[in-house]
Amino acid sequence: MQTVTVNLGQRSYPIELGEGLLSRVGEMMKAQGIAGRVGIVSNPPVAGLYAEEVRESLQGAGYETSLVLIPEGEGHKNTASLGLIYDALVGRRFDRGATLIALGGGVIGDITGFAAATFLRGIGFVQIPTTLLAQVDASVGGKTAVNHEQGKNLIGAFHQPRLVVIDMKTLRTLPQREFAAGMAEVIKHGIIQDAGYFGFLEDGMDSLMRMDPAALETAVAGSCRIKAAVVEQDEREQDRRAILNFGHTIGHALESFTGYERFLHGEAVAIGMIQAAALSASRGVCGAAELGRIEALVRRAGLPWRIPDDIALADLVDGLELDKKSHAGKIKFVLCEGIGGTRFQWFSAAEIVRELASGL
Amino acid sequence: MQTVTVNLGQRSYPIELGEGLLSRVGEMMKAQGIAGRVGIVSNPPVAGLYAEEVRESLQGAGYETSLVLIPEGEGHKNTASLGLIYDALVGRRFDRGATLIALGGGVIGDITGFAAATFLRGIGFVQIPTTLLAQVDASVGGKTAVNHEQGKNLIGAFHQPRLVVIDMKTLRTLPQREFAAGMAEVIKHGIIQDAGYFGFLEDGMDSLMRMDPAALETAVAGSCRIKAAVVEQDEREQDRRAILNFGHTIGHALESFTGYERFLHGEAVAIGMIQAAALSASRGVCGAAELGRIEALVRRAGLPWRIPDDIALADLVDGLELDKKSHAGKIKFVLCEGIGGTRFQWFSAAEIVRELASGL
Repeated sequence: MQTVTVNLGQRSYPIELGEGLLSRVGEMMKAQGIAGRVGIVSNPPVAGLYAEEVRESLQGAGYETSLVLIPEGEGHKNTASLGLIYDALVGRRFDRGATLIALGGGVIGDITGFAAATFLRGIGFVQIPTTLLAQVDASVGGKTAVNHEQGKNLIGAFHQPRLVVIDMKTLRTLPQREFAAGMAEVIKHGIIQDAGYFGFLEDGMDSLMRMDPAALETAVAGSCRIKAAVVEQDEREQDRRAILNFGHTIGHALESFTGYERFLHGEAVAIGMIQAAALSASRGVCGAAELGRIEALVRRAGLPWRIPDDIALADLVDGLELDKKSHAGKIKFVLCEGIGGTRFQWFSAAEIVRELASGL
Repeated sequence: MQTVTVNLGQRSYPIELGEGLLSRVGEMMKAQGIAGRVGIVSNPPVAGLYAEEVRESLQGAGYETSLVLIPEGEGHKNTASLGLIYDALVGRRFDRGATLIALGGGVIGDITGFAAATFLRGIGFVQIPTTLLAQVDASVGGKTAVNHEQGKNLIGAFHQPRLVVIDMKTLRTLPQREFAAGMAEVIKHGIIQDAGYFGFLEDGMDSLMRMDPAALETAVAGSCRIKAAVVEQDEREQDRRAILNFGHTIGHALESFTGYERFLHGEAVAIGMIQAAALSASRGVCGAAELGRIEALVRRAGLPWRIPDDIALADLVDGLELDKKSHAGKIKFVLCEGIGGTRFQWFSAAEIVRELASGL
């Protein structure tokens, strides 16, 4: 078991990682000084696997708990599900001292966090991420959101959790495809910030894909540390935090064009990272050898790496133009400086498409 | 013309007060360094009176503007109206550099502020409050919210504006009843914090009710200063800021019991303040003479001062129990220590009702 601390002044919090931690959630919350009522937000399949263990731990520590279920899937990450949570909180008369626990993957984490950010102008928030993606991405940084019909995460808030509990055993119930999708963000953390970590992933990718417990805990903790270092410098994404969007500009456009049904988020990001590395290479910011290493590692993780033949680059223009980080028609694109560094460059959607097409 | 500065570190902002400022909104926003697109959120009657003047000022200063209308009234301060704003922002491709202007009263200010707090996890916000209540209350402190079916302001966020522009002329189109309702919060600021200001109101209430421009500007600026001093000590209402809820505990319960249709907010607060002062007197915290002065001033402002005969105190228990400031079944009630001071005391809803009934 180990602890990664996210240092954000008064909003600092620990991420506790290890095997079998679900049964210790109650004592960990107590150690953080969390009092008041607790609502566990989850979806039916995850709740079926883990809610009872979490609930027993909470009750053992003296917490009054209730369970709020919302439907499973990205398609339900919307204001309707948010309304279900608000209704439950109002109906059960949750007050400002209450805390919501997100028990599940990224969708559950984002929507529960946004509910906690906005109910009574902000109540407590604890995350128990059960997917690799949520563990290495959503558990650090306090971004919460729901989708708008026209785009992902367009409605949201920053709201830091008071505690994150990662029980490594939850990865063993994760479908292989979702596990691989989470690995895309793990690889991203190496590319943008830490060549040593990228090397560790190259050495250990086979162990990781076999879910070797020691390798996996090291990878997850390392990813959380890298993301924490970035977020600590720029909590509200005024500037540097945007490097975490490496691969996401094209990734989001791919997801948008395919109606969020064809790719998992991490799969789209995997393709987007290779496109971003290719753009970096065509600008001379990243060498061909490093582009090759990135592509090789993505492929070893069982992730898609090319834009499928039935999707034209021009199809992505609309999605690119809806990018949340755009400003006055230009997109703040993250290029990789080899492995372990980044550089921002502003492009129009048309420029991105033209430059990528010329490299094909 | 005068400026009241709300000092909140990086989130500090000026409130500009004076006659004829609507035509200077554009230059004032420029002076604050606000760039990007601007959405003016209003309702049809207010927009009919003032939107064109604001728009011309913005366009004269080089801003690209658009108008977003939502239906008028507290009944529309809900997630449906919020959805209309989000849809407009997405449809017009507003980015993170954009700013929303709230042009209207408290409902417009609260809902527009919440939209600005949550669209793309936070965009710029400017307030042009056109009612006395919004000028002296909502313009200071950054509370934003929408209502839930089961209670007012249950969903919200803290989001400070970058600028508040108060054009005193907008008060001249305000119905007398709404003007009086705003006066309830003006009186409250004297009771909780500033005996000198309360004395100024006693001396000047006749001029104020005649809408004497000089007296009115002094009153509004003074109210903003008092509220700013409270908020500056406790931006997120961890503690002291809750003194601003003087009169609101019973006021909210009255509004809730009467379905938000019978009383304007300020009217319910006026009754609530006198009940709170009576409770303070029965606890020996406030003298009978001061209770008499509070009641007299409320009556001179043309406000209701007693719970109507057809409402029993017991009817208010449900509303009291839904109080946002409650904790573990107890309500943090604000008592007045004479005029100019306050004290918190915890009561159950039943205790409040019993104690008030015994004093009747």
